[in-house]
Amino acid sequence: MHAEQRERAHRLLAARGVECALFASRASVLWLTGFAPPVNLGPSPFAGGPPLVWYAGGTFTLIVLDAHAVAADATGLPLVTYPGYTIEAPIAAAEGLAEALRAATAADAARGAVGAELADLPAALAQALATREALMPIDGWLEPLRRRKTAEELAKLRANFDLVAVGHRAAAAAVRPGSREIDVWNAIEGAIQAAAGERVAVGNDCTVGYRDMNIGGWPGTWPIRPGDSFIVDLSTQLGGYWSDSCATYYAGAPSARQAAMHRTALEALELAIALARPGVVAGEIDRQVRQFIASAGYPIYPHHTGHGVGASPHEEPRIVPYNRLALEPGMVLMLEPGIYLPGETAVRLEHAVLVTEGAPELLTGHQVALP
Amino acid sequence: MHAEQRERAHRLLAARGVECALFASRASVLWLTGFAPPVNLGPSPFAGGPPLVWYAGGTFTLIVLDAHAVAADATGLPLVTYPGYTIEAPIAAAEGLAEALRAATAADAARGAVGAELADLPAALAQALATREALMPIDGWLEPLRRRKTAEELAKLRANFDLVAVGHRAAAAAVRPGSREIDVWNAIEGAIQAAAGERVAVGNDCTVGYRDMNIGGWPGTWPIRPGDSFIVDLSTQLGGYWSDSCATYYAGAPSARQAAMHRTALEALELAIALARPGVVAGEIDRQVRQFIASAGYPIYPHHTGHGVGASPHEEPRIVPYNRLALEPGMVLMLEPGIYLPGETAVRLEHAVLVTEGAPELLTGHQVALP
Repeated sequence: MHAEQRERAHRLLAARGVECALFASRASVLWLTGFAPPVNLGPSPFAGGPPLVWYAGGTFTLIVLDAHAVAADATGLPLVTYPGYTIEAPIAAAEGLAEALRAATAADAARGAVGAELADLPAALAQALATREALMPIDGWLEPLRRRKTAEELAKLRANFDLVAVGHRAAAAAVRPGSREIDVWNAIEGAIQAAAGERVAVGNDCTVGYRDMNIGGWPGTWPIRPGDSFIVDLSTQLGGYWSDSCATYYAGAPSARQAAMHRTALEALELAIALARPGVVAGEIDRQVRQFIASAGYPIYPHHTGHGVGASPHEEPRIVPYNRLALEPGMVLMLEPGIYLPGETAVRLEHAVLVTEGAPELLTGHQVALP
Repeated sequence: MHAEQRERAHRLLAARGVECALFASRASVLWLTGFAPPVNLGPSPFAGGPPLVWYAGGTFTLIVLDAHAVAADATGLPLVTYPGYTIEAPIAAAEGLAEALRAATAADAARGAVGAELADLPAALAQALATREALMPIDGWLEPLRRRKTAEELAKLRANFDLVAVGHRAAAAAVRPGSREIDVWNAIEGAIQAAAGERVAVGNDCTVGYRDMNIGGWPGTWPIRPGDSFIVDLSTQLGGYWSDSCATYYAGAPSARQAAMHRTALEALELAIALARPGVVAGEIDRQVRQFIASAGYPIYPHHTGHGVGASPHEEPRIVPYNRLALEPGMVLMLEPGIYLPGETAVRLEHAVLVTEGAPELLTGHQVALP
């Protein structure tokens, strides 16, 4: 898995004279190998630290907790595991991971510069490599390489975009007067997991439009009243990769004002999608879409117009005012204009597109039009 | 919040001559402050690292992402925040956290020995403290202090034990022929979140008894057949603290053999609970309960007999063969004997007890007896 990613990384590291490197961020390890432990419950209490990838002599080696050996082995990469759970002795996973790292890297000790993702690498593990010179920070080096998605990544993203479509169908049926935000959430999460046949990490916003902070938020006990708008911004993570999406529902028929807001948001989304072509500068999409909302007489949304998605739920290309990055084929963009009247009502609509040489390809299939 | 915890930590650090200390593990930060970010989706893509607690001059300061300021402020502790999400500039949260840490600790630079939890502290942040001498590892120092729960912790644990009882009632109704593991899971998770009125992190096992690996596992698409046993090992995390629990259900009436296994497991659990008194050695409970299962003619379970629970889902006292730790009042124990016939059927029953000066107090209220 993910051989193309490793080839890109190898070329970059070789070009920069880095002979050995230690990757520790979740997104880097996932992107390089296809492996990521589940996120739903936080890190395992039996893990000694994050999964690691050691690069030396052109080879990438995965270092993981023993409980993750089967999943990690599916990557086809050289694998080093360390002991976590046991009933025979106190849990010593951090020591086990440090020892595994020491052993895995000992043969390369004579090599030159060693890079490491220091923002994610535990200090104790940096010390396990401490016989060398100071570690060179390589945080963020892979990020530009992650912008153009590979075929394997697109397949994983599509599987997740299919899941959010399932969730939105459940949301459309669940948003009705008398229900609470959390009831809508349960319907969505249950439908997604039933369709996937397994647990799925699901985010994010599931909120009545009349909240004061109505851009979004996790579901609570706010009740849905007749005529309320309801924002459902859904992301899923299956196989490590993230999807995203947003639609707005109404408890009953939307008012004329809500319908007008919805139509404007939809036109803003269509404008954003039409602009998602190679060479277009991210900040220019942002500017035009905000301008469109303002021209229609609505307040400008305070968040991004969009963002990339992949091994991380929010990555380049960020569709934000300052960003001079030009779009390229293979980039996957979330685009999500909204209109918010705090304490009253709100609408946000979001689709994912793949930037191609020609017209952008829609990756999300949920309904965003007024019902 | 959690003033008693900080007083215990202060006494320990003072006794060991540590004037400044940096806590970076989730369990330590939660235990010291009452604050923990939600786990359900993994770390925020806008966080620069884990929440930190800086100890100096007897004062504990919390250092968190700006998005967590409101929740962190509820602790009543001195608070330092750093910027995460913005549309005005590239996300630079790791740099922001390092800068916040540098600023928060600068005034204490002249002090003596500085301890740090190096297994959880990112190497980049260790460098932000690098004007000092080498950092002294203090990983695990707080663990002995965490064994006796405070009144505040018991209240948080009880709230979570109430939630698993809700989940078990939903499981009892959902385990029926024709359903799949994931369908039972959705019923449980939905019931818990509906009762809590918010999202709750929920684990762990939700498995048909006829799996080859039938100790447990995350739910999948295995179908429930008439007469199958079904293990539901439920933990929740609300307010940072974890609960745990286990019951076994049957699709229809259990067979005579299943009923006999269930009764033996229940007697083993009752034995374990009766042994949970001050001064009893953890490994002795483990030995007696395993012996009881073996005497009844069943294979001995391959896992622990029990474990502590609190800021971490698995902590001391571990009820395992090697452990010479003696129980003390204020400890909270999970006790969970099981009997597994791989590929056929399985039973596990689990309750939580608080060790007191007198009889152990049951903290869980779910049904474990045969229906």
